[in-house]
Amino acid sequence: MANSKYEYVKAFERCQPDILLPNTWIVIRLDGRGFHKLTAKYEFDKPNDRRALDLMNAAAVGVMTELPDLVLAYGISDEYSFVFHKDCMLFERRAAKLITTIATTFTSYYIHLWGQYFAGTALTPPMPSFDGRAVMYPSVQNLRDYMSWRQVDCHINNLYNTTFWALIQQGGMDGTAAEKRLMGSVAADKHEILFKEFSINYNNEPEMFKKGTVLFRDYELEDPAAKPAADPELDASSQTQLPARGTPAPKGSGTLDALSGTNAPLSKTQAEKERKKRQKAKVAVEHVDVIRDEFWERRPWILSGRTGRLKQETKDGAEKAQAA
Amino acid sequence: MANSKYEYVKAFERCQPDILLPNTWIVIRLDGRGFHKLTAKYEFDKPNDRRALDLMNAAAVGVMTELPDLVLAYGISDEYSFVFHKDCMLFERRAAKLITTIATTFTSYYIHLWGQYFAGTALTPPMPSFDGRAVMYPSVQNLRDYMSWRQVDCHINNLYNTTFWALIQQGGMDGTAAEKRLMGSVAADKHEILFKEFSINYNNEPEMFKKGTVLFRDYELEDPAAKPAADPELDASSQTQLPARGTPAPKGSGTLDALSGTNAPLSKTQAEKERKKRQKAKVAVEHVDVIRDEFWERRPWILSGRTGRLKQETKDGAEKAQAA
Amino acid sequence: MANSKYEYVKAFERCQPDILLPNTWIVIRLDGRGFHKLTAKYEFDKPNDRRALDLMNAAAVGVMTELPDLVLAYGISDEYSFVFHKDCMLFERRAAKLITTIATTFTSYYIHLWGQYFAGTALTPPMPSFDGRAVMYPSVQNLRDYMSWRQVDCHINNLYNTTFWALIQQGGMDGTAAEKRLMGSVAADKHEILFKEFSINYNNEPEMFKKGTVLFRDYELEDPAAKPAADPELDASSQTQLPARGTPAPKGSGTLDALSGTNAPLSKTQAEKERKKRQKAKVAVEHVDVIRDEFWERRPWILSGRTGRLKQETKDGAEKAQAA
Amino acid sequence: MANSKYEYVKAFERCQPDILLPNTWIVIRLDGRGFHKLTAKYEFDKPNDRRALDLMNAAAVGVMTELPDLVLAYGISDEYSFVFHKDCMLFERRAAKLITTIATTFTSYYIHLWGQYFAGTALTPPMPSFDGRAVMYPSVQNLRDYMSWRQVDCHINNLYNTTFWALIQQGGMDGTAAEKRLMGSVAADKHEILFKEFSINYNNEPEMFKKGTVLFRDYELEDPAAKPAADPELDASSQTQLPARGTPAPKGSGTLDALSGTNAPLSKTQAEKERKKRQKAKVAVEHVDVIRDEFWERRPWILSGRTGRLKQETKDGAEKAQAA
Repeated sequence: MANSKYEYVKAFERCQPDILLPNTWIVIRLDGRGFHKLTAKYEFDKPNDRRALDLMNAAAVGVMTELPDLVLAYGISDEYSFVFHKDCMLFERRAAKLITTIATTFTSYYIHLWGQYFAGTALTPPMPSFDGRAVMYPSVQNLRDYMSWRQVDCHINNLYNTTFWALIQQGGMDGTAAEKRLMGSVAADKHEILFKEFSINYNNEPEMFKKGTVLFRDYELEDPAAKPAADPELDASSQTQLPARGTPAPKGSGTLDALSGTNAPLSKTQAEKERKKRQKAKVAVEHVDVIRDEFWERRPWILSGRTGRLKQETKDGAEKAQAA
Repeated sequence: MANSKYEYVKAFERCQPDILLPNTWIVIRLDGRGFHKLTAKYEFDKPNDRRALDLMNAAAVGVMTELPDLVLAYGISDEYSFVFHKDCMLFERRAAKLITTIATTFTSYYIHLWGQYFAGTALTPPMPSFDGRAVMYPSVQNLRDYMSWRQVDCHINNLYNTTFWALIQQGGMDGTAAEKRLMGSVAADKHEILFKEFSINYNNEPEMFKKGTVLFRDYELEDPAAKPAADPELDASSQTQLPARGTPAPKGSGTLDALSGTNAPLSKTQAEKERKKRQKAKVAVEHVDVIRDEFWERRPWILSGRTGRLKQETKDGAEKAQAA
Repeated sequence: MANSKYEYVKAFERCQPDILLPNTWIVIRLDGRGFHKLTAKYEFDKPNDRRALDLMNAAAVGVMTELPDLVLAYGISDEYSFVFHKDCMLFERRAAKLITTIATTFTSYYIHLWGQYFAGTALTPPMPSFDGRAVMYPSVQNLRDYMSWRQVDCHINNLYNTTFWALIQQGGMDGTAAEKRLMGSVAADKHEILFKEFSINYNNEPEMFKKGTVLFRDYELEDPAAKPAADPELDASSQTQLPARGTPAPKGSGTLDALSGTNAPLSKTQAEKERKKRQKAKVAVEHVDVIRDEFWERRPWILSGRTGRLKQETKDGAEKAQAA
Repeated sequence: MANSKYEYVKAFERCQPDILLPNTWIVIRLDGRGFHKLTAKYEFDKPNDRRALDLMNAAAVGVMTELPDLVLAYGISDEYSFVFHKDCMLFERRAAKLITTIATTFTSYYIHLWGQYFAGTALTPPMPSFDGRAVMYPSVQNLRDYMSWRQVDCHINNLYNTTFWALIQQGGMDGTAAEKRLMGSVAADKHEILFKEFSINYNNEPEMFKKGTVLFRDYELEDPAAKPAADPELDASSQTQLPARGTPAPKGSGTLDALSGTNAPLSKTQAEKERKKRQKAKVAVEHVDVIRDEFWERRPWILSGRTGRLKQETKDGAEKAQAA
């Protein structure tokens, strides 16, 4: 081939280590670049701009829809985390490919949908952009701790920001004074400032602001209490630890097996069936606690990486939110 | 802090190796994801769709404008390569950050400008997206070989595609027949098919299709022949190899020093001045040979990473193109 | 400092990604370099040289003794694998440091002890050397599958080699003929050749040759059957999956908790105590099955990373071997 | 194959990024582990133990002899750096393999030769071991700066240690007092203490202590001044920067071409011939300045990676040392 003289340069591509370790949960986290300036330029509401958050969530739904391998996503402020199951082999787990695919798909929707959420506000250069990174988590506990970390961060930041902007917008302080007032304050102090000085009950603030947004495929919730009386835990623990790979999962161990994130391999036909079912499922957009066990126990399909029971068409979003 | 219990998960982020080796040229290459389907969906012209290429170029100009650290970019088909100078320290040379910033900024412009180039054709999900990777090249020769590789690829692919689609569109063949016809053919064969059967002189095809598109900051071209009679090469070679770091560059060695990509460090004031000058320069969009020396000798600022002389305001793009 | 002009070169060291992912099992595997030539030069017995294997094992015991963080080692032929517990933070989990420390300590003992095992045979250049690599395994199952892989390899290779060398040494064949004879043969064929033609019952071959050598800290074996009747598995499974980090392990869950490799963190005093107890324990050198559960169930301290009950001084190695 | 069930674990090995970037100089640096304790245990002389340094150097000569791809090595105290030419493709440039091969070969000789340098002092556990790392340097300047960094470090440390131990051994101070005395002192102060208080002229100290030890293949020194009058630098600079890969080097450009570390590729026969010539060359063990140009100009084969003219058998080591 005529270009062989130059093609040696391809060998340099092999030197960026890229394959993410098999059997680990992959989290791709995106962060808005320079969103401080951007929020000023487009005059975002403070402390939270609902249009901006709705746009972030809509872009994330776009990503979840285009990439059925994703099992979970979580967004706060200008950041979004996307989770691939530890069994996922998409793009052979090449980090750069996974990161850029998520990041550019997200950006694509963000720009495309901007007009729907910011009607009458035209985007002008410099344009919004995002940086991203991939992190691996070996165990379910590590993954759940990651999610908890982000949700605790959301809570801490939102409580601070709500109080800070109340002091400014309703209390007439400037930024420096508000910052000084809050220095050293603990959560209870902020609750009190909000309540006593501004008649704001923080607990009544919108769930989206307090808890962030969690996305997942929207199957029928499961009821852990309804499990058969036989020791499901025993099965689960054996499954995790002792049997040779490929041993079929014992009956009745669905839920807890799921929670360990360990599965018997699927046949090709089964895998294809799963894929289709996944694409059929709607993406739920909720603002719920992901720290406690309940979230994971009622949605075992997230950690199992297997599909759940598809919801009846008649069920609507409102019901969904209540059930959580 | 209340969230310290979970914050240990941050430690897992350190394990993705990310710092690109100092003193190497960084190439970030983007590729359209699934553009085969996309070109069918939006009915791109074959073998080249000028609107689509113009959109790619416009998005790349957006990237070059937002990231003054970039010294060069080169695009063909649905791929674009962006080059950071080997001295560049942007984002501390963290790979994931560089890749995602380039990839999402490009995507942002691509979607934003779509309507200008595809008037009347609305984008619908699934949305365009791009994957990206970073490659390091230690020497100027490696970098130039990379550029040559891409431009030779452009030439080979375009000659093939031009002939293939002539056989189909004007020769009435189907794809299989055209493919069969071209199997084993060399460049001369394709030139002949085009000329004899379709009266197409390949040399008259648009430069953009034959050579791809190269972007750079548009300073006054330099004339290597006009250099002082003293041995500039001697200076250049000493500069590259022997002196302790920080030795001031000998007089008159500008051009060739530039071509080695080796520079004495700048003071903070100088660096700031350079930065401003860089932002002032227009981004040239040209379709020229980057394989031969001339391209690099007349634009020494590309390899030196230092700014050239700003063009007079009166000079326009047409002149620019001719001068190349 | 006078040398600051050159010290910038230290920055280049940051670019080799080095931190092994937390919470993964680390396996360092060493392989003899060019041991084919070495076995010829020093006339090793074929198919197995007991002196050479004893020397390998003695060097590995040296490594285990100097690095109390190691929980397990496994050797066959000229290869040795060393296992660090997934909680191990030695050298901050820096790969190059872990690999070279293990590799050079092993080499150090190998050369130092050579004379004890090859009395009268002086080492001469070129000298024995080893290459090494680090591999991470996220789950206990992955780690056990790694160990099983190596032990199955040992079995397959040893059965082949035993038959191959019987054909040569006792059957008078040359290498080519022996190879040809064995081509396409399955295990049963080789057993039959050995038995019928050379009256060798493969099952009576030395355990070291058939099973390789496994090293671990030699605590009192435990009896899984003697566990309390309450659901230990339930505890184990909850421990693995559900509770917040740091929850104290439920009573009676010792064994199975251990088998999941998940532990509550230790206080500094506890950690120091553990460390001392680990250094006190002898290193057991055994030739046992590591594929079945029994090995792991009777030695729960391997996967738990916690020390077991120290053996009585009076117990000797022979008893130890029987108990396994 | 019977073991296929477990063999999937091999896939986990691909995740340690390992290929060092082509066209970069590779430095493998070894450091003695815990040599502070070791020097106490074996009662090394302070501040320098000639036997210990000779043993380090002898081990390094062993490494250089076994690995003809190495072009240079430099040792001070308990550390040794080994340099592979940027064109070196040994082990496909896999980092772990290069590091462990160098580290274990070095260790092997260190232990093997211990008795020759420490007659009557038996090694006992814990055994000496070394850790190692690989660093890549893209340019000749970076590599030379690395070497300069180490040699400046050697000088600074040795001047400090010589003065520190003179204060203790001859001045009767204890460590704390000596340390205090030297706090804030500059080089001139230390020279004066040595000279005035202990009649030691630091300049007369052994070269090995002051400059460290540099190893290279011992070809005939070249005389840069004897080069043809034509511009060799011009050739060198063109060679480095402009021509297409594979252009034959212009005549007379040997020396400076070498200094840029850039070479036309060799044919297989040439490469084989070079290899043999390299193995024939003795390894020089010298204590010379590697910071100034002279060292590199007179030994152009180091940076060129090509062999020089083999020395006459009659020349001995003494002459060699003088010539440098």
